[in-house]
Amino acid sequence: MLNDLAERLLAVRFEALPDPAVVTAIEAILDTVGVTLAGFDEPATRAVRAALAAGGAGSGAATLFGRPDAGVGPLDAALSNGTASHALDFDDCSNTLGGHPSAPIVPALWALAEAEGGSGQALIAAYVAGFEVETRIGRAVNFHHYEKGWHPTATLGVFGAAAASAHLMRLDPGRTAAALALAATMSSGLKANFGTMAKPFHVGHCARNGLFAALLAREGMTANPQALTDPHGFFEVLNGPGTYVPERVLAQFADPFDIVETGVAFKRHPCCASTHPAIDALLALRADHGLIEADVRDVLSWTHPRRLRHTDRPKPKGGLDGKFSVQYVLARALRHGIVSLDHFSDAAVADPDIRSLMGRITAEPHPDARMDTTEHFFGEVTLTLADGRVLRHRVERPVGRDRNHPLPPGALHDKFRDCAGRTLGPVRAERLLSALVALPDQPDIAALSDLLRVPGADPARRVAP
Amino acid sequence: MLNDLAERLLAVRFEALPDPAVVTAIEAILDTVGVTLAGFDEPATRAVRAALAAGGAGSGAATLFGRPDAGVGPLDAALSNGTASHALDFDDCSNTLGGHPSAPIVPALWALAEAEGGSGQALIAAYVAGFEVETRIGRAVNFHHYEKGWHPTATLGVFGAAAASAHLMRLDPGRTAAALALAATMSSGLKANFGTMAKPFHVGHCARNGLFAALLAREGMTANPQALTDPHGFFEVLNGPGTYVPERVLAQFADPFDIVETGVAFKRHPCCASTHPAIDALLALRADHGLIEADVRDVLSWTHPRRLRHTDRPKPKGGLDGKFSVQYVLARALRHGIVSLDHFSDAAVADPDIRSLMGRITAEPHPDARMDTTEHFFGEVTLTLADGRVLRHRVERPVGRDRNHPLPPGALHDKFRDCAGRTLGPVRAERLLSALVALPDQPDIAALSDLLRVPGADPARRVAP
Repeated sequence: MLNDLAERLLAVRFEALPDPAVVTAIEAILDTVGVTLAGFDEPATRAVRAALAAGGAGSGAATLFGRPDAGVGPLDAALSNGTASHALDFDDCSNTLGGHPSAPIVPALWALAEAEGGSGQALIAAYVAGFEVETRIGRAVNFHHYEKGWHPTATLGVFGAAAASAHLMRLDPGRTAAALALAATMSSGLKANFGTMAKPFHVGHCARNGLFAALLAREGMTANPQALTDPHGFFEVLNGPGTYVPERVLAQFADPFDIVETGVAFKRHPCCASTHPAIDALLALRADHGLIEADVRDVLSWTHPRRLRHTDRPKPKGGLDGKFSVQYVLARALRHGIVSLDHFSDAAVADPDIRSLMGRITAEPHPDARMDTTEHFFGEVTLTLADGRVLRHRVERPVGRDRNHPLPPGALHDKFRDCAGRTLGPVRAERLLSALVALPDQPDIAALSDLLRVPGADPARRVAP
Repeated sequence: MLNDLAERLLAVRFEALPDPAVVTAIEAILDTVGVTLAGFDEPATRAVRAALAAGGAGSGAATLFGRPDAGVGPLDAALSNGTASHALDFDDCSNTLGGHPSAPIVPALWALAEAEGGSGQALIAAYVAGFEVETRIGRAVNFHHYEKGWHPTATLGVFGAAAASAHLMRLDPGRTAAALALAATMSSGLKANFGTMAKPFHVGHCARNGLFAALLAREGMTANPQALTDPHGFFEVLNGPGTYVPERVLAQFADPFDIVETGVAFKRHPCCASTHPAIDALLALRADHGLIEADVRDVLSWTHPRRLRHTDRPKPKGGLDGKFSVQYVLARALRHGIVSLDHFSDAAVADPDIRSLMGRITAEPHPDARMDTTEHFFGEVTLTLADGRVLRHRVERPVGRDRNHPLPPGALHDKFRDCAGRTLGPVRAERLLSALVALPDQPDIAALSDLLRVPGADPARRVAP
C-alpha cells in the first residue's frame, strides 16, 4: 500500500490545487506559526531545548521560533518548534484525525525548507500532501485508534510530517514509501500522558521523527512498503484486528482534498474546545445586548455532559487547569469580551476578583443532550440580568469549528497578532503576517527566518529551564 | 507503579552487586562494544550517520565508535552506535526480553558517561539496573508482546536505556519515574520492518529515546507515573487487555538479578541463532575426529522445523541472506572450522567454490521434533565420510545460549578481537580489550574514548552513504 500512497502524495502539485485548498493551507500555516511563537517560552518547550542542549544540539540553517539563536539543525528545530506549536493547545484541529493536523507538519516542513531551500508554493503543496496522508490514515483507523489510548496527533502526525518532508525533498516513490514505513515504525504517543508536558512533547517528537524518516530514506535506509498492512504492521499492531479499514487510505485520496472537504477547525479561544460553545454564546449575548459585567447577575451554562465532565472545574488550580474550567473562561469572557492568552497565567487564574465573579456562574449538563451522537459541540447560556430580564442563546457549534461555522472576518489575523505579537512585538508580528499572507509569492522560506528570531531576547532569562 | 520501579532501580549499587552480575555485565558490555565496532560501517549505520549530518548533527564529548570524529553529542552517538550494535545481529540475546538486551543500553550509557563523566563501576551498576528494568517489563508483557508484532528489543529496550541513563545521572525517584513514563510514550518498532535496515535502526532509535527521556526528565519535563498501568497506558495500549501481568515487574525485582538468574546469551557465530546448533554439532565432529573438508562426502543437518522454516536457504542471495542459510554456514564451518564476519560479504556468499561445497549439504526438519514446546534450539548433524564411515552428533542448545551451555573458554575474547580488530586493527583492539576487562578499575569512561576512534580512517571513503 505504501508504494501506491507514495505515488499519490507525490502527485500533489501546487499548480493543480483548488483555490480553497491554497487559502486554507495559508490560514493553517500562519495560524501554526503564530501559536508556535506564542508557545516558545512554555515549560515544555524550555525543557526540550535544555535537554537538546545537554544532549549535544548542533548548528544549522533552521530557526528556533522566537529565540535569538543564529541557526540550529532542522531535526532539533522540528522537535523544539513542534513542541511549542502544541504547548498552548491553541493549534488547529481536525475531527477526522482526532487531533491537531498542522502542528506535526509545519515545524518539520519549515525547518527543512530553511535548511535546504523551498519556496512558499513548494511549502504549501507539501503541507497539503502531508495533511491528506495523515487524515486519510486517520479515516482508516479512527475512532478506535483514538479511543484505545493513542494520541493521534502524534501517532498519525508522524506520517504527515514524513509525507510532507518527502514531498518537499522530491524523493522518488520508493524512498517516499520507505519514509512512510519508517514513520510507521516510529509512531508513538500515549494518552496516559495527557495533562502533563509530555503531551506537547509528543508533537515535537513526531515532527522530528517524520522529518528524520524522510532524511533516512533519502540516504538509502530501507523499510517494508507493507509496513501498514503487514500482519506485524501498523494497522494490526497499533490498532488491532478488525478495528480498521485500510481501503479508506487510498479511496478518494485528494479527490476532494480533506483540507477542503472537511477543512480545518481553528481555535478562536486559547482554552479547551469543549468550553468554546459556551464562550461563543455568552459573547453573542454580550455583544447583541451591549452588556457589561455589572449588568449580569448570574450565568447558567449548559454543556453536553460528555464535554462537561472535563470542563466542570469551579476552582481551577492554575493556568493549565484554567483552560479546562468553563466557569473560569466564562468569567473572563463576561468581564473582557474576549478570552486571551494572558488569562492563563497561574496568577490570572488565582485572582480573587475573578474568583468572586466565578461565584455567579453555574455550569450544568444540557437537559436535551443525547449520548448516542457525536453532535456534542452545542452549548447554551442563560443570563439573568440585574434588571430581572432573562436572556438565552444557543450555539450549535463553536465558531471556527468547520466551514459552516467560520471564524468572524479578521479573527484569525487578530489571533495571529495576539500570539506572535507577545513574542515578536507588534511591528515584527505585522511584518510576518504580511509575509505569510503572501506565502505563494515567497521565493524562499529562508528569507523569512530573521522575522522569526528575536535578536533582543535574553537567552539567560528565556532559556533557563 | 513507575514511582516504585524508580525507587527499586535507583537502589541498585555497584558495591552490593553479586560477583556473577559484575562478571556477566563486563562480558556483555565488552561484547556489545565489539559488535558495535564491527557494525560501524554497515549500510544501516552509514545511512543513520548521513541522515544525522543532513539533519544538523552537533558536536559534543561522545564518540562514534570506529570513526575519526573528534566528538559528537551523546544523543547522536546513542542513535548511531545503537544502530551499529545491532547492524550485524551479532549482539547478545535474552529469552525473557524476546530480543537483545544490551544493544539498547550500552550505547546510550557509554555516550552519557563520556559526556558527563562516569566511572566503570558507575557504568556497570547503571547497566545492570537498566537490564533488570527491561527484562522485568518483558516478563509482564511477553510473549504476547513479541508475537503480536512489536520488536521487543526496541519497545522494551527504550525502558532499559531510560532506566540506565537515569541511574547514571543520579536522578531523584520522581524524575526517574518521569523518564520511564516518557520512555513508555516513545516506545515503538514494528516487526513488519524485519529484514530491512530499519531493524537495526530501531535499536539506535530506542537508545537515543531512552537517553533523551532521562535528559528531558532531568530538565523538568513532566509525565504520568501511571503511564504503564493507566487505561490509556503502555500495557493496555501496546499489549492489550488481558495480555499482561503487571505484578511481574516488581515481583522479585533484582532478587535475584535477571542478569544472573536467566543470564545473557552470547552469540558465537555471526549469523541467525537458529543455525547455531547445527554449526556447533558440525564443529564438534570436525574437532573430535580431526576432519578436514576433503574427508567429508556429505552432510545431513536436522533442525527443528520451526527454525528450519527461515534457515532452509540452499541458494542465499547475498550477505544478509547468507546469515539465515543453514546450508551456507555449515559449508563455511566445514571448510574453515569457524564461521566469521568475513564470510558474510555478498562476494563471499556468491563464491562458486563454496556453492559447490553447499551441494553436498542437505537440511531437513528433525524427525523427533515436537511443535508443542519451546525446546526448539537442539540440532543434529550426520556426516558421511569419504571412507564410508558415518558420524553423528546432537547438541541440545548452542554454546553461549545460557549458563548451562557457556561459550568455550576464551571464545568471547576471540570474538571481540575479531569484531573490534577489523575496525581498530589488532593492537588497538587488544588494548581496548584489556581496558574493558578491567572496567571496574576505570575511573573515567571518557579516558577510553581515544581507543574507540580510528584516527587514520578516511571519512570520505567510510562515511559516504
